[in-house]
Amino acid sequence: MSDIIKFGIRKDKKALEEDLVLSPKFDENGLIPCVAMDAETKQPLMLAYMNEQSLKMTLEIGEVVYYSRSRQEIWHKGATSGHTQKVVEIYTDCDQDAIIVYVDQQGAGACHTGRNSCFYRKVDIDASKNPVNLVTTEDFTYDADAVYKK
Amino acid sequence: MSDIIKFGIRKDKKALEEDLVLSPKFDENGLIPCVAMDAETKQPLMLAYMNEQSLKMTLEIGEVVYYSRSRQEIWHKGATSGHTQKVVEIYTDCDQDAIIVYVDQQGAGACHTGRNSCFYRKVDIDASKNPVNLVTTEDFTYDADAVYKK
Repeated sequence: MSDIIKFGIRKDKKALEEDLVLSPKFDENGLIPCVAMDAETKQPLMLAYMNEQSLKMTLEIGEVVYYSRSRQEIWHKGATSGHTQKVVEIYTDCDQDAIIVYVDQQGAGACHTGRNSCFYRKVDIDASKNPVNLVTTEDFTYDADAVYKK
Repeated sequence: MSDIIKFGIRKDKKALEEDLVLSPKFDENGLIPCVAMDAETKQPLMLAYMNEQSLKMTLEIGEVVYYSRSRQEIWHKGATSGHTQKVVEIYTDCDQDAIIVYVDQQGAGACHTGRNSCFYRKVDIDASKNPVNLVTTEDFTYDADAVYKK
């Protein structure tokens, strides 16, 4: 079905920066990094990758579809957990090699560990500990073992 | 100087997810993606890459240092433009292969095109135009040609 949607042809730098046509750059592995942000709280939820097909599917179905590098397959986020991400807005950057998607996160969270966001640890920048320490900033919001039937 | 800071050793998945030691994963090119967010507005400003040295420098000097893939060199953001990014908070994700840095953006903006954010175009998701259209969401905040002496 993703033949319906077409991206622009990547031209020179100025065109990529100023033209109003989506012309994403997929890297040598066919991937583009994508950050999902909570549309309401503006909190970053996760960073994952899309390939051309998954970006087109995202546009078509209105839910975020990534490409899983570890499983090497299309990854419709929430297909297993029910924690889908409804697309609210999608942005690209100046050279069109990154995607930000603002989402309405369904269910108890985006992170497979059982938290709302994957970014649940902050670097302890003031401590001079070596190796560098992290501080937990989020509690668990659901039982990942139960949801993912581990 | 970046010998002062040490990262943790990457162990098993559970340790990476739950331990409170920064153990970043640098990819096959030695890079980790990093999203700079405005600490006040929570707006994403840019997505770029760090290598081990630039992440350590960022922690040491308190300003964001990337690795430029195009120039293949350490890139102290704002060294040319004066638009440095003062580090407020740094987060990593569950598997520690991505970085979010909340910054106090100095000067008129983060984007080399003359905007505050690199994410100045939104995908026109409601239009069924092919190729997919973009909509501009930000005006210029400075004269990039003057700042970068093009």
